[in-house]
Amino acid sequence: MFITIAYIGNSNSKLNELERDYIKKINRIGNTLGLKEIVLKKIKNSPKKNITDRKEDEFSRLSNIICRDSFNILLDRKGIQLDSINFSKIILKESSNSKNLIFFIGGSDGVEKKNHKHFDKILSFGDLTWPHKMFRVMLLEQIYRSITIFNNHPYHK
Amino acid sequence: MFITIAYIGNSNSKLNELERDYIKKINRIGNTLGLKEIVLKKIKNSPKKNITDRKEDEFSRLSNIICRDSFNILLDRKGIQLDSINFSKIILKESSNSKNLIFFIGGSDGVEKKNHKHFDKILSFGDLTWPHKMFRVMLLEQIYRSITIFNNHPYHK
Repeated sequence: MFITIAYIGNSNSKLNELERDYIKKINRIGNTLGLKEIVLKKIKNSPKKNITDRKEDEFSRLSNIICRDSFNILLDRKGIQLDSINFSKIILKESSNSKNLIFFIGGSDGVEKKNHKHFDKILSFGDLTWPHKMFRVMLLEQIYRSITIFNNHPYHK
Repeated sequence: MFITIAYIGNSNSKLNELERDYIKKINRIGNTLGLKEIVLKKIKNSPKKNITDRKEDEFSRLSNIICRDSFNILLDRKGIQLDSINFSKIILKESSNSKNLIFFIGGSDGVEKKNHKHFDKILSFGDLTWPHKMFRVMLLEQIYRSITIFNNHPYHK
Protein backbone atom coordinates (compact mmCIF):
# COMPACT_ATOMS: atom_id res chain seq x y z
CA MET A 1 0.00 0.00 0.00
CA PHE A 2 1.16 3.49 -0.86
CA ILE A 3 -0.21 6.77 0.47
CA THR A 4 0.13 9.82 -1.78
CA ILE A 5 -0.66 13.39 -0.82
CA ALA A 6 -1.25 15.34 -4.01
CA TYR A 7 -1.40 19.08 -3.46
CA ILE A 8 -1.58 22.29 -5.40
CA GLY A 9 0.92 24.86 -4.16
CA ASN A 10 4.38 25.49 -2.93
CA SER A 11 6.54 25.00 0.14
CA ASN A 12 7.87 26.79 3.21
CA SER A 13 11.23 25.88 4.66
CA LYS A 14 10.26 25.72 8.36
CA LEU A 15 7.19 23.61 7.70
CA ASN A 16 9.16 21.45 5.24
CA GLU A 17 11.29 20.24 8.11
CA LEU A 18 8.17 19.27 10.09
CA GLU A 19 6.80 17.57 6.97
CA ARG A 20 10.00 15.56 6.59
CA ASP A 21 9.88 14.56 10.27
CA TYR A 22 6.32 13.27 9.91
CA ILE A 23 7.12 11.41 6.68
CA LYS A 24 10.08 9.72 8.38
CA LYS A 25 7.96 8.77 11.39
CA ILE A 26 5.09 7.46 9.21
CA ASN A 27 7.46 5.40 7.07
CA ARG A 28 9.08 4.00 10.22
CA ILE A 29 5.88 2.67 11.82
CA GLY A 30 3.56 2.23 8.81
CA ASN A 31 4.68 -1.30 7.95
CA THR A 32 2.27 -2.67 10.59
CA LEU A 33 -0.60 -1.85 8.23
CA GLY A 34 1.33 -2.71 5.08
CA LEU A 35 2.34 0.85 4.21
CA LYS A 36 5.27 0.74 1.80
CA GLU A 37 5.78 4.48 1.49
CA ILE A 38 4.09 7.85 1.89
CA VAL A 39 4.82 10.30 -0.92
CA LEU A 40 4.11 14.02 -1.33
CA LYS A 41 3.26 15.02 -4.88
CA LYS A 42 3.38 18.74 -5.60
CA ILE A 43 1.25 20.04 -8.46
CA LYS A 44 1.98 23.48 -9.83
CA ASN A 45 -0.79 26.01 -9.23
CA SER A 46 -2.59 27.50 -12.20
CA PRO A 47 -1.36 30.81 -13.63
CA LYS A 48 -4.89 31.79 -14.73
CA LYS A 49 -6.12 35.12 -13.36
CA ASN A 50 -9.86 34.44 -13.45
CA ILE A 51 -10.94 32.53 -10.34
CA THR A 52 -13.39 30.18 -12.15
CA ASP A 53 -10.80 29.34 -14.82
CA ARG A 54 -8.13 28.86 -12.16
CA LYS A 55 -10.30 26.49 -10.10
CA GLU A 56 -11.15 24.46 -13.18
CA ASP A 57 -7.54 24.35 -14.31
CA GLU A 58 -6.34 23.28 -10.85
CA PHE A 59 -9.03 20.61 -10.61
CA SER A 60 -7.96 19.31 -14.01
CA ARG A 61 -4.31 19.16 -12.81
CA LEU A 62 -5.40 17.27 -9.67
CA SER A 63 -7.71 14.94 -11.59
CA ASN A 64 -4.76 13.66 -13.63
CA ILE A 65 -3.61 11.98 -10.41
CA ILE A 66 -7.01 10.37 -9.62
CA CYS A 67 -6.59 6.64 -9.99
CA ARG A 68 -9.55 4.25 -10.20
CA ASP A 69 -7.57 1.45 -8.53
CA SER A 70 -6.83 3.68 -5.54
CA PHE A 71 -9.08 5.27 -2.93
CA ASN A 72 -9.23 9.00 -3.76
CA ILE A 73 -9.96 11.35 -0.86
CA LEU A 74 -10.45 15.07 -1.37
CA LEU A 75 -9.85 17.28 1.68
CA ASP A 76 -12.43 20.05 1.55
CA ARG A 77 -14.08 22.19 4.22
CA LYS A 78 -17.50 21.12 2.88
CA GLY A 79 -16.75 17.41 3.36
CA ILE A 80 -17.64 15.00 6.17
CA GLN A 81 -16.02 15.87 9.47
CA LEU A 82 -14.53 12.96 11.39
CA ASP A 83 -12.71 12.57 14.66
CA SER A 84 -9.24 11.01 14.67
CA ILE A 85 -10.54 7.51 15.48
CA ASN A 86 -12.92 7.51 12.49
CA PHE A 87 -10.28 9.06 10.24
CA SER A 88 -7.96 6.18 11.18
CA LYS A 89 -10.72 3.68 10.35
CA ILE A 90 -10.79 4.91 6.74
CA ILE A 91 -7.04 4.36 6.37
CA LEU A 92 -7.30 0.97 8.02
CA LYS A 93 -10.23 -0.11 5.83
CA GLU A 94 -8.51 0.81 2.57
CA SER A 95 -5.23 -0.75 3.65
CA SER A 96 -7.06 -4.00 4.44
CA ASN A 97 -8.65 -3.75 0.96
CA SER A 98 -5.05 -3.50 -0.35
CA LYS A 99 -5.92 -0.17 -1.96
CA ASN A 100 -3.50 2.69 -2.31
CA LEU A 101 -4.73 5.93 -0.79
CA ILE A 102 -4.49 9.30 -2.48
CA PHE A 103 -5.29 12.46 -0.52
CA PHE A 104 -5.98 15.57 -2.60
CA ILE A 105 -5.50 19.12 -1.33
CA GLY A 106 -6.87 21.71 -3.75
CA GLY A 107 -5.53 25.19 -4.43
CA SER A 108 -6.45 28.18 -2.27
CA ASP A 109 -9.79 28.50 -4.10
CA GLY A 110 -10.73 24.87 -3.41
CA VAL A 111 -12.47 22.42 -5.74
CA GLU A 112 -15.92 23.18 -7.19
CA LYS A 113 -18.76 21.14 -5.71
CA LYS A 114 -19.68 19.79 -9.17
CA ASN A 115 -16.25 18.13 -9.33
CA HIS A 116 -16.55 16.41 -5.95
CA LYS A 117 -18.16 13.37 -7.65
CA HIS A 118 -14.80 12.41 -9.13
CA PHE A 119 -13.46 11.52 -5.68
CA ASP A 120 -14.37 8.49 -3.55
CA LYS A 121 -14.73 10.53 -0.37
CA ILE A 122 -14.70 14.19 0.68
CA LEU A 123 -13.34 14.77 4.18
CA SER A 124 -13.24 17.99 6.18
CA PHE A 125 -10.85 19.01 8.96
CA GLY A 126 -13.40 21.53 10.27
CA ASP A 127 -14.76 24.96 9.39
CA LEU A 128 -11.62 27.02 9.93
CA THR A 129 -9.41 28.15 7.04
CA TRP A 130 -5.76 27.06 7.18
CA PRO A 131 -2.68 28.04 5.19
CA HIS A 132 -2.03 25.32 2.63
CA LYS A 133 1.47 24.70 3.91
CA MET A 134 0.21 24.16 7.45
CA PHE A 135 -2.65 21.99 6.25
CA ARG A 136 -0.25 19.44 4.75
CA VAL A 137 1.47 19.09 8.13
CA MET A 138 -1.95 18.74 9.78
CA LEU A 139 -2.87 15.95 7.34
CA LEU A 140 0.46 14.19 7.94
CA GLU A 141 -0.17 14.47 11.69
CA GLN A 142 -3.57 12.75 11.33
CA ILE A 143 -2.10 9.99 9.15
CA TYR A 144 0.68 9.45 11.71
CA ARG A 145 -1.89 9.49 14.52
CA SER A 146 -4.01 6.95 12.59
CA ILE A 147 -1.13 4.49 12.46
CA THR A 148 -0.41 4.96 16.18
CA ILE A 149 -4.11 4.24 16.86
CA PHE A 150 -3.86 1.07 14.77
CA ASN A 151 -0.61 0.12 16.56
CA ASN A 152 -2.21 0.82 19.95
CA HIS A 153 0.65 3.22 20.65
CA PRO A 154 0.15 5.67 23.57
CA TYR A 155 0.52 8.72 21.20
CA HIS A 156 -3.28 8.77 20.87
CA LYS A 157 -5.14 7.92 24.03
CA MET B 1 -5.76 45.12 24.83
CA PHE B 2 -3.62 42.11 25.60
CA ILE B 3 -4.08 38.56 24.32
CA THR B 4 -2.79 35.75 26.52
CA ILE B 5 -2.58 32.09 25.57
CA ALA B 6 -2.42 30.09 28.79
CA TYR B 7 -1.56 26.44 28.21
CA ILE B 8 -0.71 23.33 30.14
CA GLY B 9 2.32 21.57 28.75
CA ASN B 10 5.75 21.91 27.33
CA SER B 11 7.51 22.96 24.15
CA ASN B 12 9.11 21.61 20.99
CA SER B 13 12.02 23.39 19.38
CA LYS B 14 10.83 23.27 15.75
CA LEU B 15 7.33 24.42 16.59
CA ASN B 16 8.75 27.08 18.95
CA GLU B 17 10.28 28.82 15.97
CA LEU B 18 6.91 28.83 14.18
CA GLU B 19 5.28 30.13 17.37
CA ARG B 20 7.82 32.96 17.59
CA ASP B 21 7.20 33.84 13.93
CA TYR B 22 3.45 34.09 14.48
CA ILE B 23 3.88 36.11 17.69
CA LYS B 24 6.15 38.56 15.84
CA LYS B 25 3.68 38.86 12.95
CA ILE B 26 0.69 39.32 15.29
CA ASN B 27 2.50 41.99 17.33
CA ARG B 28 3.49 43.77 14.10
CA ILE B 29 -0.03 44.12 12.68
CA GLY B 30 -2.21 43.91 15.84
CA ASN B 31 -2.09 47.62 16.65
CA THR B 32 -4.92 48.24 14.16
CA LEU B 33 -7.30 46.67 16.68
CA GLY B 34 -5.54 48.06 19.70
CA LEU B 35 -3.52 44.94 20.50
CA LYS B 36 -0.58 45.89 22.72
CA GLU B 37 0.95 42.45 22.97
CA ILE B 38 0.26 38.73 22.66
CA VAL B 39 1.78 36.60 25.39
CA LEU B 40 2.18 32.83 25.82
CA LYS B 41 1.85 31.66 29.41
CA LYS B 42 3.05 28.14 30.09
CA ILE B 43 1.54 26.32 33.06
CA LYS B 44 3.27 23.23 34.37
CA ASN B 45 1.30 20.03 33.92
CA SER B 46 0.14 18.12 36.96
CA PRO B 47 2.34 15.32 38.31
CA LYS B 48 -0.71 13.39 39.57
CA LYS B 49 -1.01 9.85 38.23
CA ASN B 50 -4.79 9.43 38.56
CA ILE B 51 -6.55 10.94 35.50
CA THR B 52 -9.46 12.50 37.48
CA ASP B 53 -7.07 14.08 40.00
CA ARG B 54 -4.78 15.27 37.20
CA LYS B 55 -7.65 16.90 35.28
CA GLU B 56 -8.87 18.64 38.42
CA ASP B 57 -5.36 19.78 39.35
CA GLU B 58 -4.70 21.10 35.85
CA PHE B 59 -8.05 22.89 35.78
CA SER B 60 -7.19 24.47 39.12
CA ARG B 61 -3.82 25.63 37.72
CA LEU B 62 -5.58 27.12 34.66
CA SER B 63 -8.32 28.71 36.72
CA ASN B 64 -5.75 30.81 38.60
CA ILE B 65 -5.30 32.69 35.34
CA ILE B 66 -9.05 33.28 34.75
CA CYS B 67 -9.68 36.98 35.12
CA ARG B 68 -13.16 38.44 35.50
CA ASP B 69 -12.14 41.68 33.73
CA SER B 70 -10.96 39.72 30.70
CA PHE B 71 -12.81 37.53 28.22
CA ASN B 72 -11.87 33.93 29.01
CA ILE B 73 -12.06 31.44 26.14
CA LEU B 74 -11.47 27.73 26.66
CA LEU B 75 -10.45 25.75 23.57
CA ASP B 76 -12.13 22.37 23.81
CA ARG B 77 -13.26 19.82 21.24
CA LYS B 78 -16.76 19.91 22.74
CA GLY B 79 -17.10 23.68 22.26
CA ILE B 80 -18.79 25.72 19.53
CA GLN B 81 -17.18 25.30 16.15
CA LEU B 82 -16.69 28.51 14.16
CA ASP B 83 -15.25 29.35 10.80
CA SER B 84 -12.35 31.83 10.61
CA ILE B 85 -14.62 34.82 9.91
CA ASN B 86 -16.73 34.18 13.01
CA PHE B 87 -13.65 33.46 15.10
CA SER B 88 -12.28 36.86 14.07
CA LYS B 89 -15.58 38.50 15.07
CA ILE B 90 -15.10 37.33 18.67
CA ILE B 91 -11.64 38.91 18.84
CA LEU B 92 -12.95 42.09 17.21
CA LYS B 93 -15.93 42.32 19.58
CA GLU B 94 -13.85 41.94 22.73
CA SER B 95 -11.20 44.35 21.47
CA SER B 96 -13.91 46.95 20.82
CA ASN B 97 -15.17 46.30 24.39
CA SER B 98 -11.57 47.07 25.49
CA LYS B 99 -11.38 43.65 27.10
CA ASN B 100 -8.24 41.58 27.32
CA LEU B 101 -8.58 38.11 25.85
CA ILE B 102 -7.32 34.95 27.49
CA PHE B 103 -7.30 31.68 25.55
CA PHE B 104 -6.97 28.52 27.64
CA ILE B 105 -5.58 25.24 26.32
CA GLY B 106 -6.04 22.40 28.80
CA GLY B 107 -3.75 19.44 29.35
CA SER B 108 -3.90 16.28 27.25
CA ASP B 109 -6.92 15.06 29.24
CA GLY B 110 -8.88 18.26 28.64
CA VAL B 111 -11.10 20.16 31.07
CA GLU B 112 -14.12 18.45 32.72
CA LYS B 113 -17.50 19.62 31.38
CA LYS B 114 -18.58 20.68 34.91
CA ASN B 115 -15.74 23.24 34.91
CA HIS B 116 -16.71 24.77 31.56
CA LYS B 117 -19.00 27.24 33.35
CA HIS B 118 -15.96 29.14 34.67
CA PHE B 119 -15.12 30.33 31.15
CA ASP B 120 -16.93 32.97 29.10
CA LYS B 121 -16.88 30.89 25.93
CA ILE B 122 -15.89 27.38 24.86
CA LEU B 123 -14.62 27.16 21.28
CA SER B 124 -13.75 24.08 19.27
CA PHE B 125 -11.31 23.75 16.36
CA GLY B 126 -13.13 20.61 15.14
CA ASP B 127 -13.43 16.95 16.07
CA LEU B 128 -9.87 15.83 15.35
CA THR B 129 -7.29 15.39 18.11
CA TRP B 130 -4.09 17.47 17.78
CA PRO B 131 -0.77 17.40 19.58
CA HIS B 132 -0.76 20.22 22.14
CA LYS B 133 2.36 21.79 20.68
CA MET B 134 0.79 21.91 17.21
CA PHE B 135 -2.49 23.21 18.59
CA ARG B 136 -0.79 26.34 19.96
CA VAL B 137 0.56 27.13 16.50
CA MET B 138 -2.91 26.50 15.03
CA LEU B 139 -4.44 28.94 17.54
CA LEU B 140 -1.79 31.56 16.76
CA GLU B 141 -2.53 31.07 13.06
CA GLN B 142 -6.23 31.78 13.62
CA ILE B 143 -5.47 34.87 15.74
CA TYR B 144 -3.10 36.14 13.04
CA ARG B 145 -5.71 35.36 10.38
CA SER B 146 -8.36 37.22 12.43
CA ILE B 147 -6.27 40.39 12.42
CA THR B 148 -5.65 40.12 8.66
CA ILE B 149 -9.44 39.76 8.20
CA PHE B 150 -9.98 42.91 10.27
CA ASN B 151 -7.22 44.71 8.33
CA ASN B 152 -8.74 43.56 5.03
CA HIS B 153 -5.37 42.04 4.15
CA PRO B 154 -5.32 39.52 1.25
CA TYR B 155 -3.99 36.74 3.58
CA HIS B 156 -7.59 35.63 4.12
CA LYS B 157 -9.78 35.90 1.04
